Amino acid sequence: MINVGIIGVGRIGKVHGESITRYVKGAAVKAVADPFLTPETEQWAKNLGICEVYTDYHKILDDKDIDAVLICSSTDTHSSISLEAIAAGKHIFCEKPIDHDVNKILGVKKALENSRIKYQVGFNRRYDHNFKKTRAAVEAGKIGELNVLKICSRDPGAPPVSYIKVSGGIFLDMTIHDFDMVRFMSGSEVDEVFAYGAVLVDPAIGEAGDIDTAVISMKLKNGALAVIDNCRRASYGYDQRVEAFGSLGQVAISNDTESSAVISDATGVHAEKPLLFFLERYMGAYVDEVSEFIDCIENDKPVSVGIDCGLEPVLIGLAAKRSLEKGVPVKIAEIAAEYGL
Amino acid sequence: MINVGIIGVGRIGKVHGESITRYVKGAAVKAVADPFLTPETEQWAKNLGICEVYTDYHKILDDKDIDAVLICSSTDTHSSISLEAIAAGKHIFCEKPIDHDVNKILGVKKALENSRIKYQVGFNRRYDHNFKKTRAAVEAGKIGELNVLKICSRDPGAPPVSYIKVSGGIFLDMTIHDFDMVRFMSGSEVDEVFAYGAVLVDPAIGEAGDIDTAVISMKLKNGALAVIDNCRRASYGYDQRVEAFGSLGQVAISNDTESSAVISDATGVHAEKPLLFFLERYMGAYVDEVSEFIDCIENDKPVSVGIDCGLEPVLIGLAAKRSLEKGVPVKIAEIAAEYGL
Amino acid sequence: MINVGIIGVGRIGKVHGESITRYVKGAAVKAVADPFLTPETEQWAKNLGICEVYTDYHKILDDKDIDAVLICSSTDTHSSISLEAIAAGKHIFCEKPIDHDVNKILGVKKALENSRIKYQVGFNRRYDHNFKKTRAAVEAGKIGELNVLKICSRDPGAPPVSYIKVSGGIFLDMTIHDFDMVRFMSGSEVDEVFAYGAVLVDPAIGEAGDIDTAVISMKLKNGALAVIDNCRRASYGYDQRVEAFGSLGQVAISNDTESSAVISDATGVHAEKPLLFFLERYMGAYVDEVSEFIDCIENDKPVSVGIDCGLEPVLIGLAAKRSLEKGVPVKIAEIAAEYGL
Amino acid sequence: MINVGIIGVGRIGKVHGESITRYVKGAAVKAVADPFLTPETEQWAKNLGICEVYTDYHKILDDKDIDAVLICSSTDTHSSISLEAIAAGKHIFCEKPIDHDVNKILGVKKALENSRIKYQVGFNRRYDHNFKKTRAAVEAGKIGELNVLKICSRDPGAPPVSYIKVSGGIFLDMTIHDFDMVRFMSGSEVDEVFAYGAVLVDPAIGEAGDIDTAVISMKLKNGALAVIDNCRRASYGYDQRVEAFGSLGQVAISNDTESSAVISDATGVHAEKPLLFFLERYMGAYVDEVSEFIDCIENDKPVSVGIDCGLEPVLIGLAAKRSLEKGVPVKIAEIAAEYGL
Repeated sequence: MINVGIIGVGRIGKVHGESITRYVKGAAVKAVADPFLTPETEQWAKNLGICEVYTDYHKILDDKDIDAVLICSSTDTHSSISLEAIAAGKHIFCEKPIDHDVNKILGVKKALENSRIKYQVGFNRRYDHNFKKTRAAVEAGKIGELNVLKICSRDPGAPPVSYIKVSGGIFLDMTIHDFDMVRFMSGSEVDEVFAYGAVLVDPAIGEAGDIDTAVISMKLKNGALAVIDNCRRASYGYDQRVEAFGSLGQVAISNDTESSAVISDATGVHAEKPLLFFLERYMGAYVDEVSEFIDCIENDKPVSVGIDCGLEPVLIGLAAKRSLEKGVPVKIAEIAAEYGL
Repeated sequence: MINVGIIGVGRIGKVHGESITRYVKGAAVKAVADPFLTPETEQWAKNLGICEVYTDYHKILDDKDIDAVLICSSTDTHSSISLEAIAAGKHIFCEKPIDHDVNKILGVKKALENSRIKYQVGFNRRYDHNFKKTRAAVEAGKIGELNVLKICSRDPGAPPVSYIKVSGGIFLDMTIHDFDMVRFMSGSEVDEVFAYGAVLVDPAIGEAGDIDTAVISMKLKNGALAVIDNCRRASYGYDQRVEAFGSLGQVAISNDTESSAVISDATGVHAEKPLLFFLERYMGAYVDEVSEFIDCIENDKPVSVGIDCGLEPVLIGLAAKRSLEKGVPVKIAEIAAEYGL
Repeated sequence: MINVGIIGVGRIGKVHGESITRYVKGAAVKAVADPFLTPETEQWAKNLGICEVYTDYHKILDDKDIDAVLICSSTDTHSSISLEAIAAGKHIFCEKPIDHDVNKILGVKKALENSRIKYQVGFNRRYDHNFKKTRAAVEAGKIGELNVLKICSRDPGAPPVSYIKVSGGIFLDMTIHDFDMVRFMSGSEVDEVFAYGAVLVDPAIGEAGDIDTAVISMKLKNGALAVIDNCRRASYGYDQRVEAFGSLGQVAISNDTESSAVISDATGVHAEKPLLFFLERYMGAYVDEVSEFIDCIENDKPVSVGIDCGLEPVLIGLAAKRSLEKGVPVKIAEIAAEYGL
Repeated sequence: MINVGIIGVGRIGKVHGESITRYVKGAAVKAVADPFLTPETEQWAKNLGICEVYTDYHKILDDKDIDAVLICSSTDTHSSISLEAIAAGKHIFCEKPIDHDVNKILGVKKALENSRIKYQVGFNRRYDHNFKKTRAAVEAGKIGELNVLKICSRDPGAPPVSYIKVSGGIFLDMTIHDFDMVRFMSGSEVDEVFAYGAVLVDPAIGEAGDIDTAVISMKLKNGALAVIDNCRRASYGYDQRVEAFGSLGQVAISNDTESSAVISDATGVHAEKPLLFFLERYMGAYVDEVSEFIDCIENDKPVSVGIDCGLEPVLIGLAAKRSLEKGVPVKIAEIAAEYGL
């Protein structure tokens, strides 16, 4: 039995707490920590049978009986807590992104060298039943050689502008998942990126220095092309799809719905909207990613979504940002070189 | 070039007139006849370049240059005109049903014996792209041995009660197409039928002695089971589907729509209704059935939808009628025996 | 916290054990009992943290700290254990069917009179996300007045003939779920039933005195018609669909799949088969039905799937059986009258 | 009745010849001309009842009884024949593109000034039932303000390299239709374009100086973004789809198939591939575009796809070409300015 501590029990921390307690075999949540503990959170922990509830996460790091931590705190604390957890010898599951600052990610990477610590990044979409099947089809050669990859990724609605301001910008906050998907689906690194962006959802997002709508095209190192379209608003629900085109065919997924009920009446044929947002769409993926993390610890396997999976999408995000600012395509190597990579 | 005369140019006669003129290779409409000729019909004929327009169909039967006739007059005249056309040596395409009276159909059948006349019955659904593909899949063994056949056949709205009164009842007017489909899809004769009926659309239909909603189950001679559901009302459009289940799988079709456009918005995902009614859904089938008829004449091939295809569904319809009246299943052989078959 | 004991921990008992432990809030499995306890089952219980594992279910009935029992033993023991559990004052969740013998069900019903015991029958499909949405649409008047109900219910493969022999026949073993669905979807009782059956899957099933393929049509008391098609074999997976047609429209559901991935290649467009069988398709429903049961106990609400929901489908099943044997439609009232109902 | 002459009766000229003869009301093909007349073409014309068959198209231009010409000859002759036809006072339907050389298009435009000649360009997709419905939904505000437009346009297989060499390159030969679709769907002009291209289908295409796979992103003047993906190969058939995303929702179309038949078996659920290629997919659109052209002549209406619709996509195509060559985004205004526009 792997004992786990969760650092940060906001929305995503609670998701992991519940899914580990209920669904993840071989793991138990021994403790949670959050600097802003509320009575609701304490009750939530109690209901799940989690007895140790702290404001100071160091109590978790100091607990010899805790094997692994989930870092679910705010992004700006991910890298420093990672370093402390590494020093404490804990295995680490860190929510994405590790940091917006490449140097901080590199700091974590360095600290992991020569350690036996498992370090997994929370790119949950890799564990989604639809995306996984798509990748499996590509990997199995069902569509031959990959030629073009198209990712549609649209949120049901924009977050508050206060969040936008500290988000690192759409490319590091939202598209970062899609950059990870490009890498996952193609099995290739990205060579170059070109981004168009616009403020079409909310002028306040533009005033905050960000965009809310984007079309990002890419050349991959394996020769394929890719394109992502992002929007902070999809009135019809969370739109998360991928299409991969290859020499022998195509594979595509559609969104999940609550049920398959279709009503036909005099006004048309009416089906359900996609599931509302990530908690609904990716609940199964949250369970599976942590289950795999636990399995890697128990059986000393390498994690499949490690520190480099946390690093590369940030480099691509920074390249997309520069592309948007300068109006030209940007090589990932250009960004990497600036960090000595 | 096969010269054709059309007897009866109401709705379906006009459909054939237009489709032959435009789409049927090797055939031309030389003349049309209708006892209730209107100026609109005369103009319609003129627009299509049909010069001979009569009130008396005997002028068509007397024309030595006319090779074939399409009998599109009212049902009660089909058999007597068939007999006259046979006597005149014309090939005949007769709209369904040949008659509601089995003896009259048998009279036509007898008259055709030893003649070289092609006699085709207008069961258009056999030529529909969707139904044809389903039959092809069944015939090719794609679903293995046929076990169960389900036919959904629902009209968008009920005809006037005046029509209902002379229609022969739902089983001979509407279900007759579906009985033909059971024979076509299964490649088997029907052994026994049991019918449930109800008046759920319009009480006036019940007052006219008919039903408007039915579920008809059948045992086929090949051992398979079949079920048809009929309704005179489908608010969402003309619903014409079939599902065939076999030892190895299933084949099913959906309705055609005007376009594949799907709109997703905050209220749901909205697709188009099925095409409104038979003229929209089966336009291609009307062309193809007459094209095959012309081909059978030109190349002296046997027709695939001959006089027996006109007879059998009437026998099944009469069995269904008796089943509904008596509340018990009825063998087709019981009806047939009453006609010495 | 409601303490639960599970009597019978074969396949379905284990399903409930896991789902209560993991997902059902406010309930805990305190004990399980099974006369054929295996080491695997003991290990299974231990893994779930269930400490009390008995061969004799009376130990559960005698435990004052156990509030409710789930009867998941073989069908022939359901009614007698129900009576004992009622005598012991336990709330009861009984797997379907309560019994094949109407008198035994009536015995349980009598024992429940004037008691405050919650008695729920395990008709899980009522809790399936797709069926629930269909019922909700019908109930909300989305399709107007219900006219016709069609249920397609096909198992991926036949059970062993040894099971068939003690199953009570297809109508009481398999169709009973569909009879329940007719009542649930329509909100109406069944008036009369007519059944066609055939042995098309395995002759051994016929030799065992049963059929493996059936088309069952019904008249409902609210005037609507219904039809169920059953087969013990669906090579493409578990086929569980319903279509409801009404005065204003239609509602239909399709089967669930593992993912929405669709592969298009030179041979066609390929999607996934339906989920394999009931454990896959109805896992969510198993959780929800027991959650509702627990909620009814905790908050003293009437159960929605009570003893009468266990009785009526058996009456319909017996009527279907008689219809098949005699070749005529059979009124449910005829069967009921034989039991003084 | 409008008399029409067809100049060039290769594949597309024959399509128009047949569709006018059969389906276009108010028009007749009086003559056809082709410098490479074959006996097959002569027979084809005879079968359609077209008596005048020439090698020299001037005979058509000289015929006072001919009101309109369809220019279906090779692209390099479109503009010069257009000029001659304008001089002869004929209304003109010209296949796309008018020319690859902007100056030649401008020459035609100049010649049309102050004339009453109808000049329509053959952008058939605007008349496709699916694309039309999508545009109608966008125009009607069903998705609110347009934010992002995605066009997927993939040919089933690459044309011969000999064709590629004179095609003007993928952007002027293939994408030109999609550039037209961007203008049609958005109701906006394009501001800037950025193109990624690759040779992934056939190295010989690369050796011929062209690409076979492209992702082209665009900024539109109305502020929306657009992206097109093109490939000369789609093993699963002709892939022609569009998705439009707006402030209130999304509209999308799927490909047409020959039938809706779906076969489910032990290996999966199998539907049909998209219709093979443009003749199959756009047959209805070919009829409708010429019908509208004839209607514009008969009723003196302005054509909806006029000379500017022929010009703009060429400017965008040239911008895309330059973008690909230089690796930077290119403004359409930059290209236009070079032609004094």
